[in-house]
Amino acid sequence: MTRAIDRLRTAAAEREASGLRRVLRPRTPDHDGLLDLASNDYLGLSRDERLIEAAVRATREWGAGSTGSRLVTGSTLLHAELEDRLAAFAGAAQGLVFSSGYLANLAAVAALGRGGLVVSDAGNHASIVDACRLSRARVVVTPHGDADAVAKVLAERDEEHALVVTDAVFSVDGDLAPLRDLHAAAERHGALLVVDEAHSLGVVGDGGRGAVHEAGLADRPDVVRTITLSKSLGSQGGAVLGAPEVIETLVDTGRSFIFDTGLAPASAGAALAAVEILETTPDLPERSRATARRLAATARELGLETSEPAAAVVPVVLGPPLLALSAAALCGELGVRVGCFRPPSVPSGRSCLRLTARADLGSDDLAVVRDALTAVAEVKVDR
Amino acid sequence: MTRAIDRLRTAAAEREASGLRRVLRPRTPDHDGLLDLASNDYLGLSRDERLIEAAVRATREWGAGSTGSRLVTGSTLLHAELEDRLAAFAGAAQGLVFSSGYLANLAAVAALGRGGLVVSDAGNHASIVDACRLSRARVVVTPHGDADAVAKVLAERDEEHALVVTDAVFSVDGDLAPLRDLHAAAERHGALLVVDEAHSLGVVGDGGRGAVHEAGLADRPDVVRTITLSKSLGSQGGAVLGAPEVIETLVDTGRSFIFDTGLAPASAGAALAAVEILETTPDLPERSRATARRLAATARELGLETSEPAAAVVPVVLGPPLLALSAAALCGELGVRVGCFRPPSVPSGRSCLRLTARADLGSDDLAVVRDALTAVAEVKVDR
Ligand SMILES: Cc1ncc(COP(=O)(O)O)c(C=O)c1O
Ligand SMILES: Cc1ncc(COP(=O)(O)O)c(C=O)c1O
Repeated sequence: MTRAIDRLRTAAAEREASGLRRVLRPRTPDHDGLLDLASNDYLGLSRDERLIEAAVRATREWGAGSTGSRLVTGSTLLHAELEDRLAAFAGAAQGLVFSSGYLANLAAVAALGRGGLVVSDAGNHASIVDACRLSRARVVVTPHGDADAVAKVLAERDEEHALVVTDAVFSVDGDLAPLRDLHAAAERHGALLVVDEAHSLGVVGDGGRGAVHEAGLADRPDVVRTITLSKSLGSQGGAVLGAPEVIETLVDTGRSFIFDTGLAPASAGAALAAVEILETTPDLPERSRATARRLAATARELGLETSEPAAAVVPVVLGPPLLALSAAALCGELGVRVGCFRPPSVPSGRSCLRLTARADLGSDDLAVVRDALTAVAEVKVDR
Repeated sequence: MTRAIDRLRTAAAEREASGLRRVLRPRTPDHDGLLDLASNDYLGLSRDERLIEAAVRATREWGAGSTGSRLVTGSTLLHAELEDRLAAFAGAAQGLVFSSGYLANLAAVAALGRGGLVVSDAGNHASIVDACRLSRARVVVTPHGDADAVAKVLAERDEEHALVVTDAVFSVDGDLAPLRDLHAAAERHGALLVVDEAHSLGVVGDGGRGAVHEAGLADRPDVVRTITLSKSLGSQGGAVLGAPEVIETLVDTGRSFIFDTGLAPASAGAALAAVEILETTPDLPERSRATARRLAATARELGLETSEPAAAVVPVVLGPPLLALSAAALCGELGVRVGCFRPPSVPSGRSCLRLTARADLGSDDLAVVRDALTAVAEVKVDR
């Protein structure tokens, strides 16, 4: 065995000792017969016949791959149509589609923030953290959800050029960023505000138009939205929505746009169908939010720690990592697949279950979840 | 208009003045009736019925999206099967599938290089450059294709922990990295060698098993390969192939693996079908290479500057950016879509056309390309 591999083994043994090993468990199409409350398929669209048929049609018409960079052969009329529809739906001037939400964030923050000041919330998603590193900007991390801290950093700075970036709804806690206050601060100082709507588009706001729309900021040229096509839209991919000047900056200088193959036609077609469903079923997002409120109410009734959900994400905080792990396993035994988050994904002592309130859960499903949470509450009391 | 947008406008005007604006031109399914020599669909598989039907079947069976991170609900049996087949085909111990080749490179270099020394070829792809930045390693860039320089850096270093990274076939020039010498240097110093096979898998080596396989290094535990599913495999996505210790390191610590949604089923299914086609049609890669040699011979005969192609990429160097642009436009007029690369994608004074030799080009097609290149040669002489 070579020295390089020896070093990897040693590091793996250290992760093992700290309980930080992870194992991939490939699932069946029906989630191994479990009720799925772990995915981000918030509207249950990934298996909707309309998305599936749209993906099939797109593949037959355009092929299995887009065949090149968006700047060479990877832009099809289908990509252009998806960009127009996403922008129109969300009330943005223009849209630009990426092969993932991760790469959309890298381009938005790195290209728009380049060389200036980037102010980033401490709870932001890993892709935003990576984007900050790639921006070669001075990066200041502010306490979670603290618009005053952001305003203070902007006021103190002497840079000409600044960007504020935040998740709209945070992935694990499911709480909402103070978008209006953040925008007021950004506007006052001539900064751009980049908002990641990964967990809010399709769930929050009028007909699922997202948190920026709900905050009345959809038409502001200094607000840039990043979205993913892989959660409420049931597909794969990402996009940036914003002013024409923003989009052209990304086309000219966004490395993760220019140097990546365009999104596969199947995924573009499915996302387009999802937008059409949102347009024709405007109450779908509220179904998901109402289910989230019911799940949170159930958890509270059972004496479990949770918070009032802003979107479809319901955390159930258990504390120690092993308690969260065993609670997740117990839910599995009782027929429900839930997410389980441990440090470093959450702060130490805040290990939790993460339940996602799919819009298509029925009352039978909710009864199964209640039974599982009842068992979790009993285990918690036993400790 | 806000100050933030004003700044973007000013920067756009500067790019405009330097000829660095780029425009998206959405194409039709048949590439606007042009013969496509610009895509990376090296084997012509993106429109192969077998890939299309595999994508359709995967979508119907698994849905339009994978619904979550690979660590939560985004690993399906289909992903696991694709990983096994890719590894078996390339002679690697294990495989790990990503939603893009870009994100596969970010994880491989950033997670495996973290905090040590990373030695990177000056010609490496943008995703590797970004990965180097994310690694928080000491990064040393060595002259293009220079294994002695790499050996020297490794010998001088005092770090315990080092990684060497290179494209196998470079995207624009199409030349091959000195893999055996690079591996000898890496092995001598206990470093990992990461090889990006984006332009070599499916094209180079026995049955398209890639440049690492061709160099006899497929079974070395200290050699890590990154591949993309979006070029010769005609789909979308990426993968890392390597020793079990490498794969488990990426599962535990690869940020762009953990914090990204799994690849869409359609793309996984199509890539799997592509691997099966390679296994049953072992002469397909050689068809693409033979076409590349013919194209290069034609260019040389016509007095154009090119190089002996190692894979399917044939550069035609023209020099000034405007000459390259007008040559590409002329090819379009004559029915052939070619790639056009200008600084900063290529060194200044080395603007070029990039022709990709698809395996499915016939002699009629090659006659059309000859006519286009003849016209290009005449324009060049005219200047
Ligand atoms: C807040 C947030 N942003 C971005 C992403 C990345 O999106 P994608 O999975 O489409 O790459 C995710 C999750 O995957 C996320 O939770
Ligand atoms: C050398 C190289 N590596 C990686 C990539 C990225 O692969 P993908 O397009 O699948 O993200 C590309 C091109 O896109 C490439 O040319």
